[in-house]
Amino acid sequence: DAAIKVRDTLIKSGLETPMIDNGLTSEEKYQRIKAAFEDVVTTLGLDLADDSLAETPHRIAKMYVKEIFSGLDYAHFPKITVIENKMKVDEMVKVSDISFTSTCEHHFVTIDGLAKVAYLPKTKIIGLSKINRIVRFFAQRPQVQERLTQQILVTLQALLETDNVAVSISAVHYCVKARGVMDASSSTQTTALGGLFKSSDKTRFEFLAK
Amino acid sequence: DAAIKVRDTLIKSGLETPMIDNGLTSEEKYQRIKAAFEDVVTTLGLDLADDSLAETPHRIAKMYVKEIFSGLDYAHFPKITVIENKMKVDEMVKVSDISFTSTCEHHFVTIDGLAKVAYLPKTKIIGLSKINRIVRFFAQRPQVQERLTQQILVTLQALLETDNVAVSISAVHYCVKARGVMDASSSTQTTALGGLFKSSDKTRFEFLAK
Ligand SMILES: Nc1nc2c([nH]c(=O)n2[C@H]2C[C@H](O)[C@@H](COP(=O)(O)OP(=O)(O)OP(=O)(O)O)O2)c(=O)[nH]1
Ligand SMILES: Nc1nc2c([nH]c(=O)n2[C@H]2C[C@H](O)[C@@H](COP(=O)(O)OP(=O)(O)OP(=O)(O)O)O2)c(=O)[nH]1
Repeated sequence: DAAIKVRDTLIKSGLETPMIDNGLTSEEKYQRIKAAFEDVVTTLGLDLADDSLAETPHRIAKMYVKEIFSGLDYAHFPKITVIENKMKVDEMVKVSDISFTSTCEHHFVTIDGLAKVAYLPKTKIIGLSKINRIVRFFAQRPQVQERLTQQILVTLQALLETDNVAVSISAVHYCVKARGVMDASSSTQTTALGGLFKSSDKTRFEFLAK
Repeated sequence: DAAIKVRDTLIKSGLETPMIDNGLTSEEKYQRIKAAFEDVVTTLGLDLADDSLAETPHRIAKMYVKEIFSGLDYAHFPKITVIENKMKVDEMVKVSDISFTSTCEHHFVTIDGLAKVAYLPKTKIIGLSKINRIVRFFAQRPQVQERLTQQILVTLQALLETDNVAVSISAVHYCVKARGVMDASSSTQTTALGGLFKSSDKTRFEFLAK
């Protein structure tokens, strides 16, 4: 199915997130992460008995396994609806302002972004919400923005059976805003272009323009 | 000095962050948090040998001890300049749009906020940048927004030797935006008012108005 096709494509293209199968179940992962955060919270000198903090290791473990890192597990890959291009769409389909949040894999801090995705339909048309779901699936991993952008590109190329796909992401990295250089206003743009989006200036500009 | 006065005030008022002195040095805290995150990263099934992830436990441990949770240690409390009110200021001093980031103590996820702080000078005037520094000091702790707001209030009341202080915070909680209910646009307002800011409608409105 779609998830297996996508995973194989990512592995073949060298764009898969660096993962090692450790054989742990979700429940085992939850328990270990909870134990690790009990240690982190007490190491920081916080009182784990306080009613506001007592559930913090539980909440973070649940959040890591089921929410913000759920995209590490292909079992959570969205069900994809792809239909035949019987209506003969031959111009760009572009989805703008796909809001997503992700997590920087260098600091485990939030990334707040907007994605723009376009393709030139060949034989397949994808359900629109599925584009947003694919963006969010890969966003629910520890990420660097460049890899996230490429992963969305090759995933859509594989599912749509065409190279003519483009992805652009603009994001604020809280690891840059909330710590380190503490830049209050910068954002980062990344772009990944395939097929005509790369080779034809016209198509490229049409995509990159608002 | 100021840090000791502030800590005593917070403890007396029951507004101190729930901390327990575990006797660990910064270096010991760093080592333990780094070890805990090595476990978290491998438990998630990520490859710690990858060049992008290898330093993640180190970066997070450094960030927790020296950056986003540095306000747990009063050694980092800012040097405070308070001068005599010789210029007889008798109207409100108000600092708006103090940008800060903090960390939600329930999920260890970023809070992105703006604070507004005002006081009616009595005998003391505080260096303006010190107000921002006090906001940031308490923001560099695991927090709930309500406690952060109150901690800034009582700190300034103690340092300025007057009850006539007001603090208001508007913040986006990424634990609400990036997970859980995933609300894309909500923000949270909290207010803490002392003295005339609480008892006089005129003063209250003057503070709360833009
Ligand atoms: N290319 C790229 N870099 C990123 C992303 N997210 C992210 O944190 N970075 C950068 C920020 C830093 O420059 C770098 C990590 O640098 P580092 O190993 O010196 O860590 P650090 O925390 O001490 O660095 P700093 O942020 O304090 O400068 O990773 C991303 O999505 N793409
Ligand atoms: N009053 C207050 N609540 C906060 C702050 N930060 C923060 O996460 N919360 C709330 C969000 C949740 O309602 C609550 C934790 O709820 P919970 O123990 O059910 O944890 P959860 O992750 O399962 O909750 P949820 O966000 O998925 O609803 O704490 C804050 O600064 N002030």
